[in-house]
Amino acid sequence: MPTDGEQSVVRAEQHTGPRPSLESGEEVLAEVERERWVERAEGLKPWLVESQIDPVRLVAPVENESAHLRWRMEPLAPAASLSQRLLRAGDSIVLDFGTHVVGYLSLSLRWEGQHMDAPTRVKMTFGEVPAEVAEPFDPHRGWLSRAWLQDEVINIDVLPATIRLPRRYAFRYVKLEVIATSRNFGVRFDGIQATVLTSATAEPNPLPPGTADWLRRVDEVSIRTLRNCMQTVFEDGPKRDRRLWIGDLRLQALASYATLRNDDLVRRCLYLFAGLPRADGLLAACVFEEPSPYRGEVYILDYAALYGATVLEYARATQDRDTARTLWPVVRQQMDLLSRSIGPDGVFAASGDASAFATATDALPQAWVFVDWSTALDRTAAMHAIVVYSLRQAIELARVVGAERDVADYPQRIQAMTAAARQAFWDSARGIFTSGPQRQVSWASQAWMVLSEIAAPDEAAAALRAVGSWPDAIRAGTPYLYHYVVEAMLRSGLRAEALDLIRSYWGGMVEAGADTFWEVYDPWNALLSPYDNVLINSYCHAWSCTPTYLVRQYGLA
Amino acid sequence: MPTDGEQSVVRAEQHTGPRPSLESGEEVLAEVERERWVERAEGLKPWLVESQIDPVRLVAPVENESAHLRWRMEPLAPAASLSQRLLRAGDSIVLDFGTHVVGYLSLSLRWEGQHMDAPTRVKMTFGEVPAEVAEPFDPHRGWLSRAWLQDEVINIDVLPATIRLPRRYAFRYVKLEVIATSRNFGVRFDGIQATVLTSATAEPNPLPPGTADWLRRVDEVSIRTLRNCMQTVFEDGPKRDRRLWIGDLRLQALASYATLRNDDLVRRCLYLFAGLPRADGLLAACVFEEPSPYRGEVYILDYAALYGATVLEYARATQDRDTARTLWPVVRQQMDLLSRSIGPDGVFAASGDASAFATATDALPQAWVFVDWSTALDRTAAMHAIVVYSLRQAIELARVVGAERDVADYPQRIQAMTAAARQAFWDSARGIFTSGPQRQVSWASQAWMVLSEIAAPDEAAAALRAVGSWPDAIRAGTPYLYHYVVEAMLRSGLRAEALDLIRSYWGGMVEAGADTFWEVYDPWNALLSPYDNVLINSYCHAWSCTPTYLVRQYGLA
Repeated sequence: MPTDGEQSVVRAEQHTGPRPSLESGEEVLAEVERERWVERAEGLKPWLVESQIDPVRLVAPVENESAHLRWRMEPLAPAASLSQRLLRAGDSIVLDFGTHVVGYLSLSLRWEGQHMDAPTRVKMTFGEVPAEVAEPFDPHRGWLSRAWLQDEVINIDVLPATIRLPRRYAFRYVKLEVIATSRNFGVRFDGIQATVLTSATAEPNPLPPGTADWLRRVDEVSIRTLRNCMQTVFEDGPKRDRRLWIGDLRLQALASYATLRNDDLVRRCLYLFAGLPRADGLLAACVFEEPSPYRGEVYILDYAALYGATVLEYARATQDRDTARTLWPVVRQQMDLLSRSIGPDGVFAASGDASAFATATDALPQAWVFVDWSTALDRTAAMHAIVVYSLRQAIELARVVGAERDVADYPQRIQAMTAAARQAFWDSARGIFTSGPQRQVSWASQAWMVLSEIAAPDEAAAALRAVGSWPDAIRAGTPYLYHYVVEAMLRSGLRAEALDLIRSYWGGMVEAGADTFWEVYDPWNALLSPYDNVLINSYCHAWSCTPTYLVRQYGLA
Repeated sequence: MPTDGEQSVVRAEQHTGPRPSLESGEEVLAEVERERWVERAEGLKPWLVESQIDPVRLVAPVENESAHLRWRMEPLAPAASLSQRLLRAGDSIVLDFGTHVVGYLSLSLRWEGQHMDAPTRVKMTFGEVPAEVAEPFDPHRGWLSRAWLQDEVINIDVLPATIRLPRRYAFRYVKLEVIATSRNFGVRFDGIQATVLTSATAEPNPLPPGTADWLRRVDEVSIRTLRNCMQTVFEDGPKRDRRLWIGDLRLQALASYATLRNDDLVRRCLYLFAGLPRADGLLAACVFEEPSPYRGEVYILDYAALYGATVLEYARATQDRDTARTLWPVVRQQMDLLSRSIGPDGVFAASGDASAFATATDALPQAWVFVDWSTALDRTAAMHAIVVYSLRQAIELARVVGAERDVADYPQRIQAMTAAARQAFWDSARGIFTSGPQRQVSWASQAWMVLSEIAAPDEAAAALRAVGSWPDAIRAGTPYLYHYVVEAMLRSGLRAEALDLIRSYWGGMVEAGADTFWEVYDPWNALLSPYDNVLINSYCHAWSCTPTYLVRQYGLA
């Protein structure tokens, strides 16, 4: 998730009612403790596993209106034929590495001809999908930085040379364009290799025999997505953003426990967030690793809420109660901070106004509500439900770490918020949850009302079924929310519907050619981009990696 | 001198007459001997002297029709103010280092703002003259490689960073353009420094007190030109070509003996040529150093001829007779090879046809005649005279090394060629030398007839004076030929005329803003480029550096 935009985020509404104050006995987490946590996180920084991979073939992008992103790749020749081609100024080739990889590129090239009497100027463009090497990046469109588009121009004074580009890229395709040589020589690429990086070391258990092919393919692509996002943190996207977000981390950690399992990496990430909150204790939505860890100045209330669930799931997966105990005060602090935004009506004060980039409330200034990228979504109901969900997770975590006393009043908060939610959001006539003054119906509201157990068990399945038939329902805009919708279905016993949704959504990406799952996928709008430029979308994105978890956790295979 | 063009070079005409064969007693230089010479040259590779220099000021190019290359630089602020500016996407600055330098650039930059949530993309453009940072390089014009134009685009993932660009540049001006950051941060350049390189170590003697200011300035610019071209060889131009040519080497060596004196560098260069001839023994016009020395596949007959003069001058300047003795067979071989192209009429068979890039004759296939870049020039007379000149130098060299027997027949060749020249080229009615079937009058012909002593002492000054008043005379097109014209004047006692020419020509470049002397300068045609693109001309070019030699050698100050 990038942060330099104005889309899809919602202000936490100001409220004027009384705010619960922090309990007097609450310990303020000392700065020195925070620093130790960052040090602990740095001590857990993984060595990356490197492997070499060669390109598979030369290809050419061919415009194709029926292809999801407008281009398909036509195979031209085996990659071995590359060294048979002498490239002169103006010549270009596109290499296909066969699948999505994250890593470094090395190339060996030499000159041939009379003599090398000028430098060689080569442009390299990296694409996760065909469109990135088929369409020009410039003039740049959209509101994200041009610098995310992966291209380099290099000038080489002396050949032969073997060059390892110093930056890491995420790609399946590499376009090499010879911009300039001289009339007296051409260049020949002898060897091109990628050094692929990941911090995943374990191999996932195979799916049971007899698993449907489509599901097997979805599972493979999920795992590849996870693997390629597992670097020195769980990155959101190895092409773009390349950093750790709470929302993505939670889903990656779940997928990791089920497959590639790097528990230390989860622990590292949990400590990074814990060590770098803002002054009032609210966790940052993202942290940056380099040159040394620092927090991103982005605060997302639903992400802060879900940190507790992430710690709880870590403790359950690893049995590492020490870490959970250490981090418990951080989880508790998020709950207490969030509780300040509960209004006198018992409703969490997040408005449905999607027009503001960042907002201030007295309680939690400069914080957003995310839930999903959908710009039309009214987030009030979903955010309210996420707080309730998180309070429940916190109670569970308190039990694990023996801090039941800290959460003594949580059940009462949950009860009050549940009652308030039923008052504010439940449309008993339609059997569905709504949100905001327009009584908007959305997938997000139903999913989170189910997961938070605000919806009674008998209402949950009905509400989820009903939303699908509601014509104006705001659908999910990202795989991130699709995940929670599927999970809500599975929790409501809608196994067939969940499987259908996995098949149509993630299976749809596979059909559209995904080697790794995408940041954004709308089956009805192929060129959707939250950034006004489909080329800058991330095509290997952490929050898309969960089918492998859902399949294994819920025994769908 | 670049080699990937079709301009200004002349085919050595086929001739059908008898060719003198090599003397039976002549030793063929063994390949192993050649290899030893290359090794010796590599052993003489100098350490480069490094020094640090900071930019002086921020400037802005301002279009100005009266400026020689259309642009002048307006000072904006001291360079120290750079760090006060936060640059965002789209911002650019131009730094002025105060004078022409050759070396590496280091820059330190950091981000400022909310957080660095995208890479930074920066473009750097290096200019020897204002036009290079004022006019776009693309779309690229002309027939030389775009890769010579000095610009780089770099993407930086993590700031703060100190970056030393891996390539060497020749520049006075550096334009920094911030192509992309994100909305959340800008970049600040804290430190920018050049590491300046040269293999010159000695300091020149000062000119006598009372030397005219203009001449002092011309001398300074000459020396700077030489210093900046003195790298691990005597380069022709540190921006473009960056390699060793015989024609440039001779003039640089003369200037070096008079000023910055690095005799070992001359010796290294002489051995490089000697060690890398083509199979028939003809010296290459240029050699490349990297990755290991190899010859350029360009053969220029007048350059091969002048190798002997270069060895002779080296021997005289250094008293190093051993090197001269070792290299004597190479000099002799050039003379013998060239003599094969003397036609039955006693005239050296170089036609005036300027249309061909490279040509074949039975005697010396694939060789050119250069003399000057001027496309209109008929080179027959000049080339003939250069051969005669070189035979005379060879006789002198044979005396130095005790090889008089080897040149026993040279005086007779000179005599025959002198007679033939007077027959073919001397226009007694006009008191001037002509060239070719159109009886073309040119500075080149007069200069070389004088230097070769084909012109009688009493004719020389008259011919040189006459050419100036001849309306259609082909003028010199390069500083290279200007040098020989001035030297011919000085040898003919035309001291005032020589000084005038230095003042108007090299002094004209200084007036036009030259920090180092240029590859191409035509007072009447500011935008002249042999490459159809004035931006790709070299503005620090070896063959322009000789005024400092002329001033000191002939006591002009």
